[in-house]
Amino acid sequence: MTYQEVLENARKRMAPRCKVCPECNGIACKGIMPGPAGKGASRTFQRNYAWLSDHVKLEMDVTGGDQERNMELELFGKTFAAPIFVAPMGLISLAYTEDMTDKKYCDAVMPGAKAAGILAFGGGGPKAENFYEPLEAIRENGGWGIPTLKPWSVDVVKERLKEVETVNPIAFAMDIDSAGLPHANLANPPMLLKTEAELKEIAEATKLPFIVKGIMTAEAALKAVRAGAYAIVVSNHGGRVMDNGLSTAEVLPEIRKAVGNSVKILVDGGIRTGDDVFKMLALGADAVLIGRPYVIAAYGGGAEGVALYTEKLKAELKDAMTMTNCTALTDITMDKVRIV
Amino acid sequence: MTYQEVLENARKRMAPRCKVCPECNGIACKGIMPGPAGKGASRTFQRNYAWLSDHVKLEMDVTGGDQERNMELELFGKTFAAPIFVAPMGLISLAYTEDMTDKKYCDAVMPGAKAAGILAFGGGGPKAENFYEPLEAIRENGGWGIPTLKPWSVDVVKERLKEVETVNPIAFAMDIDSAGLPHANLANPPMLLKTEAELKEIAEATKLPFIVKGIMTAEAALKAVRAGAYAIVVSNHGGRVMDNGLSTAEVLPEIRKAVGNSVKILVDGGIRTGDDVFKMLALGADAVLIGRPYVIAAYGGGAEGVALYTEKLKAELKDAMTMTNCTALTDITMDKVRIV
Amino acid sequence: MTYQEVLENARKRMAPRCKVCPECNGIACKGIMPGPAGKGASRTFQRNYAWLSDHVKLEMDVTGGDQERNMELELFGKTFAAPIFVAPMGLISLAYTEDMTDKKYCDAVMPGAKAAGILAFGGGGPKAENFYEPLEAIRENGGWGIPTLKPWSVDVVKERLKEVETVNPIAFAMDIDSAGLPHANLANPPMLLKTEAELKEIAEATKLPFIVKGIMTAEAALKAVRAGAYAIVVSNHGGRVMDNGLSTAEVLPEIRKAVGNSVKILVDGGIRTGDDVFKMLALGADAVLIGRPYVIAAYGGGAEGVALYTEKLKAELKDAMTMTNCTALTDITMDKVRIV
Amino acid sequence: MTYQEVLENARKRMAPRCKVCPECNGIACKGIMPGPAGKGASRTFQRNYAWLSDHVKLEMDVTGGDQERNMELELFGKTFAAPIFVAPMGLISLAYTEDMTDKKYCDAVMPGAKAAGILAFGGGGPKAENFYEPLEAIRENGGWGIPTLKPWSVDVVKERLKEVETVNPIAFAMDIDSAGLPHANLANPPMLLKTEAELKEIAEATKLPFIVKGIMTAEAALKAVRAGAYAIVVSNHGGRVMDNGLSTAEVLPEIRKAVGNSVKILVDGGIRTGDDVFKMLALGADAVLIGRPYVIAAYGGGAEGVALYTEKLKAELKDAMTMTNCTALTDITMDKVRIV
Repeated sequence: MTYQEVLENARKRMAPRCKVCPECNGIACKGIMPGPAGKGASRTFQRNYAWLSDHVKLEMDVTGGDQERNMELELFGKTFAAPIFVAPMGLISLAYTEDMTDKKYCDAVMPGAKAAGILAFGGGGPKAENFYEPLEAIRENGGWGIPTLKPWSVDVVKERLKEVETVNPIAFAMDIDSAGLPHANLANPPMLLKTEAELKEIAEATKLPFIVKGIMTAEAALKAVRAGAYAIVVSNHGGRVMDNGLSTAEVLPEIRKAVGNSVKILVDGGIRTGDDVFKMLALGADAVLIGRPYVIAAYGGGAEGVALYTEKLKAELKDAMTMTNCTALTDITMDKVRIV
Repeated sequence: MTYQEVLENARKRMAPRCKVCPECNGIACKGIMPGPAGKGASRTFQRNYAWLSDHVKLEMDVTGGDQERNMELELFGKTFAAPIFVAPMGLISLAYTEDMTDKKYCDAVMPGAKAAGILAFGGGGPKAENFYEPLEAIRENGGWGIPTLKPWSVDVVKERLKEVETVNPIAFAMDIDSAGLPHANLANPPMLLKTEAELKEIAEATKLPFIVKGIMTAEAALKAVRAGAYAIVVSNHGGRVMDNGLSTAEVLPEIRKAVGNSVKILVDGGIRTGDDVFKMLALGADAVLIGRPYVIAAYGGGAEGVALYTEKLKAELKDAMTMTNCTALTDITMDKVRIV
Repeated sequence: MTYQEVLENARKRMAPRCKVCPECNGIACKGIMPGPAGKGASRTFQRNYAWLSDHVKLEMDVTGGDQERNMELELFGKTFAAPIFVAPMGLISLAYTEDMTDKKYCDAVMPGAKAAGILAFGGGGPKAENFYEPLEAIRENGGWGIPTLKPWSVDVVKERLKEVETVNPIAFAMDIDSAGLPHANLANPPMLLKTEAELKEIAEATKLPFIVKGIMTAEAALKAVRAGAYAIVVSNHGGRVMDNGLSTAEVLPEIRKAVGNSVKILVDGGIRTGDDVFKMLALGADAVLIGRPYVIAAYGGGAEGVALYTEKLKAELKDAMTMTNCTALTDITMDKVRIV
Repeated sequence: MTYQEVLENARKRMAPRCKVCPECNGIACKGIMPGPAGKGASRTFQRNYAWLSDHVKLEMDVTGGDQERNMELELFGKTFAAPIFVAPMGLISLAYTEDMTDKKYCDAVMPGAKAAGILAFGGGGPKAENFYEPLEAIRENGGWGIPTLKPWSVDVVKERLKEVETVNPIAFAMDIDSAGLPHANLANPPMLLKTEAELKEIAEATKLPFIVKGIMTAEAALKAVRAGAYAIVVSNHGGRVMDNGLSTAEVLPEIRKAVGNSVKILVDGGIRTGDDVFKMLALGADAVLIGRPYVIAAYGGGAEGVALYTEKLKAELKDAMTMTNCTALTDITMDKVRIV
């Protein structure tokens, strides 16, 4: 199977909501809700993509000689083949087609990611099963996955963390911005915005590293740091929680500046290629999360499609490192890109 | 009735001049005059919409905890359910379709607004009836409306203010920029530009709060303040009085800076969603006026459509407050948005 | 006849080269050469229009009271009804349709301009008749026109100036940028770029005021001033002498700053409406020249069309003055617009 | 044969991959790989063209008098009729149509360039024949060409330089950015990124002037200078080695600033017309390389087409010099353009 075949197959299986566009930029699916669209007029989805694509350029330099390019990432005490994670994606059948349940999706991305040396986050949703299905998939995948909890009440979170611990995952995440999701009002148990104190209580309830997802300002990042987060995800939920938000790429440098090295920074939003991964690392991220393209890979090729897309990303990232004289991820610094 | 049905119904009743576009941005109706278009090439109409949409972004922050969001507005000694007013719209049958007289329009927006806890301005026009019909509607609505006077000679204004007082409205407005309207030359009595002294004479002719509508510079705002205005409306008449004007959003911050808290500031121009309301408040407004979308709501669903659209705006504004950590309108300050 | 009818009539008579577009912006005619297009890819034509349209906005202020708006211009010791001239246009039948000779064109614009209180420049071309036909039209129009000489050798210019003097025109112009015209190589006598010394020799060869057309830099403007020019025309020949030039509007303020009040400044390029006239005056011009729209007016309505279009411009300029609190042309200063 | 006929002929022979667009800007061929497209989404190809076209404008000044315009270039101890070279283009049949081998292409561009007083670079590719065919063409053309070596191991380079010397060319080039080409992995012998030390070793292996092609930063330029390069080519390989690179025009001024006059600077990327040549010289280049348009000229008219296109460029460059008051290439300085 080639990646091209994955796309063609996905195009058939995902119609009509997702068109598997040549550039997944939020234009063709605008207003398709439920669907892959961003909120409202998809402005934030589109901005995530367009800002990263149009305003960040790589500084080509091929005078460093022929070298090995090492894109391995050390995180959570583990080694990953590349600084790439599969973002948490839930309610697949609602947003795309009924052809794919959340469990089947997890069964594609989790082994697929593992085969390519990376790892997938589990998704979530308003119902209990939206939490338990991905958790079960992580268990079946030997704990090689990161469950994502919704911002339920601290008591509910503590209870579920006990269940999370039984699958022995690498870490756990909470997408604290879920309250802005289109179906947030259907959530049971309800989703509630969190304070720094509540985040701290959650962080202290388990020894698992805590990933706070949904940070868009320096101030919020510092709260997460003080609360004891191991990592934050600079994210606006792929544009699904706001129609008029900033892009993640444009706020990333100021967030890194504010937190220094006190926390790991992941980021999602509009990342499609290895060049995009490179850009996000240069802007301050330790690693990236990629969502919609992995759904396409899963529809189009199952676990094999997920692995194939990941290998493509790795080859592109290696290319980008080669053309900018970087031999390791730590070489990918702000001076390797230009904001235009 | 759903808001979607309101739009579909409006699309049938408003053809061909207004197409009830997915985004009411002044592009499809460009040049349709009489019609909903802006003056000339609709540049100011389009700029109102585009500047607000493209250059003002919300700073998402979901680390403030779960809280009540209070969007009540105190103004004119009254309490409104949201910082939203229905803008004065007149000559409906001329600009849209003959299906709707100004009186029928008032009979939709005034009770509809009231049902949703807000209030509608009455519109105007070149003929006597364009003044008396909305006034009558306000009377029938128990004074829950704001009549809009044209900038007639001070003597005519004084006379009509006496009639205004008989309906006991909350305030009265004058759109001092009417002289630039396409049909201004047909007005009888004639519409005349006002000086600060004349505005003062008008303000002093009644105890009703005076709202000066059609301010686009700091200097003009200060004149209105000195003349005794209770509120100003930063407005270019939805782009109908100039083809090459600035957008209201881009001049709003400098006007607020100039007048400080000495006057209430309302604003219209390109506001379509609760996010837009949020943006205008962050840029310096106390409340907003919305025009064209309410005409669509009135055509598509009468009073019920007007209430429905208002509830949609309120839900969106609440969402925006939730996602930016605002609990009251006073929290919606300049640092909650970014001009990009 | 209405202006709308003028346009419809012109659309029939000018096909296929000029489409009489709703906005005459250099897009539809791009590459049509010979034709109304700009040079090359019409970039300079398009930039003239787009920069003036998109980057210059009027500061609306309606708090100055009801006043007379006087748009009369004193220039060359004469009074004109508005600060507007018909630009020199030649080789009409080549650029548009064979339906209109240069003489017939002059017979439309010269009396039409006169009827509306303004004045037309005569055009030119590579052949002798391109000079003599407009000159004859000016004679027939009682000297109410400005002949435009090509940058022939100084000797040829001096000779022809004697003939110019016999028609007793208000002034004479030379488009010194003609060397860049598409058909410049066919010129007989040849067209030659001029030095400051040569311009001076020409200025001193007659008592008629000398208008140097084709200035785009402060330095060139100062040369024209030192050479004794009465006026300069900031112009890139409507984009016909360069494909990658700046727009006239964007260089106008720096040229005015350089020359102060030592010379009158006219400007052309992308001016279509009274708002555009206002903008150019605010940016530093004393008056404007308008070309392509007058050709359309002449094809569509002859002298009557030319007068009609001029009256439309005057009404629009008056409107712009009304909405910005200007009572005379001297009020139209830089602070009445904003460059965005 | 006219240039128009060259284009029409090329349009037939080059379908379907290259459409011979009115503007060769990387839009219509986007994603056509193999083909004339840029890498990935053709962003760098498009940026090369768009930045040069949209952000660099000429300062028109026609007050310098009638003068000779000399566009002769002294370089490599030779005199060229214009500061223009045919860029190295290889694998023609793969990227365009099978109608044209690399040898046939060389047989068109080398004599065609010579006829017009300029010179063509030989192209290259992954196989041995991709090197030897152009070299043979240069030999047949009396050494009037510049062979381009791939960045093979220094030993291989040295060996081949001996063969290069036998054709007695004016200089030799190496496109050190080849490692990023789509087919780089097929190269035999392999292509390897070079260090400054390796470049130095290559420079010292022959008396032929060494042209280092593929420089995009000041730092890399300084390395090439220290390595003993006679000239560098500011180039991103027409956008074929990176999808998210900067345009060559935008980095050119900072590279010139860094190296001063210590090295000759050539540049390619988006250059289509004489105006573009002028712009690149003003931004800091000594001469330019042009690629895709010469392939079109060769398909459409063979050697005659190449000469015709070159004459067109020369006429346009002369025009640009005329309209900006430049008499020699040294007059084409930064103040003759404006970056907008």
